[in-house]
Amino acid sequence: MSSVSRLDPASGSSALELAMRSAIAASEGVRGFTSPNPPVGCLIVDAGGKPVGFGGTQPPGQAHAEIVALRMAGAAAKGGTAFVTLEPCAHHGRTPPCADALIKAGIVQVYYAIDDPSPVASGGAQRLRQAGVTVHSGLLADQVRTGPLRAWLHRVRTGRPHVTWKFASSVDGRLSAADGTSRWISSPEARAEVHELRLKVDAVIVGTGTVLADDPQLISRPPVNETATRQPLRVVVGERDIPAGARVLDDAAETVHLRTRDPREVLAALTERGVVDVLLEGGAKLAGAFWEAGAVDRALVYMAPMLLGAGTPVLGEIGVGTIGDALPLMFESATMIGPDVRISAVPAPE
Amino acid sequence: MSSVSRLDPASGSSALELAMRSAIAASEGVRGFTSPNPPVGCLIVDAGGKPVGFGGTQPPGQAHAEIVALRMAGAAAKGGTAFVTLEPCAHHGRTPPCADALIKAGIVQVYYAIDDPSPVASGGAQRLRQAGVTVHSGLLADQVRTGPLRAWLHRVRTGRPHVTWKFASSVDGRLSAADGTSRWISSPEARAEVHELRLKVDAVIVGTGTVLADDPQLISRPPVNETATRQPLRVVVGERDIPAGARVLDDAAETVHLRTRDPREVLAALTERGVVDVLLEGGAKLAGAFWEAGAVDRALVYMAPMLLGAGTPVLGEIGVGTIGDALPLMFESATMIGPDVRISAVPAPE
Ligand SMILES: NC(=O)c1ccc[n+]([C@@H]2O[C@H](COP(=O)([O-])OP(=O)(O)OC[C@H]3O[C@@H](n4cnc5c(N)ncnc54)[C@H](OP(=O)(O)O)[C@@H]3O)[C@@H](O)[C@H]2O)c1
Ligand SMILES: NC(=O)c1ccc[n+]([C@@H]2O[C@H](COP(=O)([O-])OP(=O)(O)OC[C@H]3O[C@@H](n4cnc5c(N)ncnc54)[C@H](OP(=O)(O)O)[C@@H]3O)[C@@H](O)[C@H]2O)c1
Repeated sequence: MSSVSRLDPASGSSALELAMRSAIAASEGVRGFTSPNPPVGCLIVDAGGKPVGFGGTQPPGQAHAEIVALRMAGAAAKGGTAFVTLEPCAHHGRTPPCADALIKAGIVQVYYAIDDPSPVASGGAQRLRQAGVTVHSGLLADQVRTGPLRAWLHRVRTGRPHVTWKFASSVDGRLSAADGTSRWISSPEARAEVHELRLKVDAVIVGTGTVLADDPQLISRPPVNETATRQPLRVVVGERDIPAGARVLDDAAETVHLRTRDPREVLAALTERGVVDVLLEGGAKLAGAFWEAGAVDRALVYMAPMLLGAGTPVLGEIGVGTIGDALPLMFESATMIGPDVRISAVPAPE
Repeated sequence: MSSVSRLDPASGSSALELAMRSAIAASEGVRGFTSPNPPVGCLIVDAGGKPVGFGGTQPPGQAHAEIVALRMAGAAAKGGTAFVTLEPCAHHGRTPPCADALIKAGIVQVYYAIDDPSPVASGGAQRLRQAGVTVHSGLLADQVRTGPLRAWLHRVRTGRPHVTWKFASSVDGRLSAADGTSRWISSPEARAEVHELRLKVDAVIVGTGTVLADDPQLISRPPVNETATRQPLRVVVGERDIPAGARVLDDAAETVHLRTRDPREVLAALTERGVVDVLLEGGAKLAGAFWEAGAVDRALVYMAPMLLGAGTPVLGEIGVGTIGDALPLMFESATMIGPDVRISAVPAPE
């Protein structure tokens, strides 16, 4: 009984939060594998408070997080509690409703972080309550909203992918030195993080300029001894041809060349392909065009501890002539990553 | 007895550190008023562990921190403990040795943070021990070394002032917009911090370019309802004339115009005037020249949450042609200051 009461909202939030954190970890673990579906995570604890099931959303058409966790829990789910990062779905898509599966398995209590904003899938909480399940929403909602479900929530709200502009620069705001060299501008720690990030997004975008200058491969190479189990779609934007033999054309991952200079066309083409989460990796001209079109949702700066004094500025023309017209942002965080500083910013709320 | 034992090294460090923190606060409080002497702070607690004296170094020729604190403590110092940010001095300068004064007042124990590195003044610890005083060194030494005594220690070690290059930029590394405007690029919070900083340094340096473009007054204007009790020396560097009527020529503070383009000459002239702590406030050309001459000891970036896409880059030419020759730094911290991010970096140790 004492372990059950640990999961009671009245008994302090730490045990509940710990359980939801496991669900968030499951969610993070499947990021990049689920689009256009949300990367949801679920933890099931039995009637005695013991974790018995755990899982994240499987690739499209396969099991949702709740189903993965229920399968692991088996009969132990009866009388138990489910922690889910998103409100369990109530609709028959390619898979049956998760709310029904939780009810059928005998789950008596559900904690979820975020209400499902999609009109087709929502209603799960109501369905659970009607079946006598106690339902609590909002547990660690902010962490889920700004974390694993950020891109998917953005896509549901706006109808287009979430775009993170990522770049590595010197303290004086240069992407590369006077002669165009930029190799190893960021530290091994920052590079490892970027390779992790590529593993979790659906697509990586660069301009033809970056392909011609740097010939990047644009795949995820996680640190030593780990193999990437999937690769993001490689997207090259611009009217010029990609040179035959460019590394971006190898068969380490799929590549599309969008012969346009309109960021909106790029986003439309990616939306069509089910892309939800995008990393815009430069260079300065394409990034400028995306900002000017209002097509960037987050800036992720890896600032390296060095000065260059000359070289490519991090951002091209965005149509700002005077200080009063600056494009306003809001910082989310500034963190040391190995020897570098990582800064995250979003467009300022209106 | 119980309060005395709280000051025993064996009894855990928190009471000791708290006492030294008061001494550090006293030290911070007199920064900017003591050059070329170090801004030292001192706290004296009586035999029962109660604070009875507190103070910081007075302007040159006047009392050192220990003397200020001893005067406040009076007879209560007898049998007490002194916490000092720097090893008490042992030499007769314009004032008698502090070590002697502590002994005479009956202080039985001294904690200090940093050994005095100057050949003339050191030897105080030895003198105290010879008189039977228990002496402990190193308490919160790092905080003092990177904090209030940073510039002075640098000056003793190198023979020249400590130079902090301070600038406010957009996330994309611009000092001003395409039309040269930069007013209010940083937040009120960051500006208040810079005015505090000007109050604590001995001199503020700009190039003639900044004077001609912005006509800054370069004085410290602390936030509402506080009046600056002193002003740093204003230093303008460059061969061109300062226009008559420039605000930097008003009588709010002293100004020197150094008609040179050699940072080393600038530092020599300032050393001569007893300047220890300098704020290099731009612009990009002068900062570039200082970096190239190896004459900058710290970079202090106030990054504002905005994008400009064009405008003056934060740093001019520093003679780096390729990425392998980048000038290496080491980050000290990255902190949110109101809506801005403040980043501190130092030249990488060899
Ligand atoms: N440190 C870093 O994080 C980082 C990351 C990436 C790149 N870089 C550096 O950036 C440099 C390349 O810079 P870049 O600016 O040329 O690269 P870019 O932005 O990747 O490519 C520019 C090209 O994109 C195409 N494009 C598509 N839409 C556009 C639009 N709306 N406006 C303008 N151009 C558009 C144009 O090519 P078409 O003429 O073909 O249409 C244009 O020439 C390289 O030196 C590389 O090292 C650094
Ligand atoms: N956001 C910020 O934090 C901030 C701070 C300061 C300035 N700014 C902006 O910076 C712009 C001014 O830029 P700036 O680069 O012209 O200003 P600057 O660096 O203050 O002044 C440049 C001048 O300094 C003199 N100088 C002295 N030694 C030099 C050397 N070794 N090498 C080159 N020049 C030397 C030269 O003038 P002589 O010809 O007279 O010798 C040169 O023209 C303004 O638009 C201002 O708004 C922004």
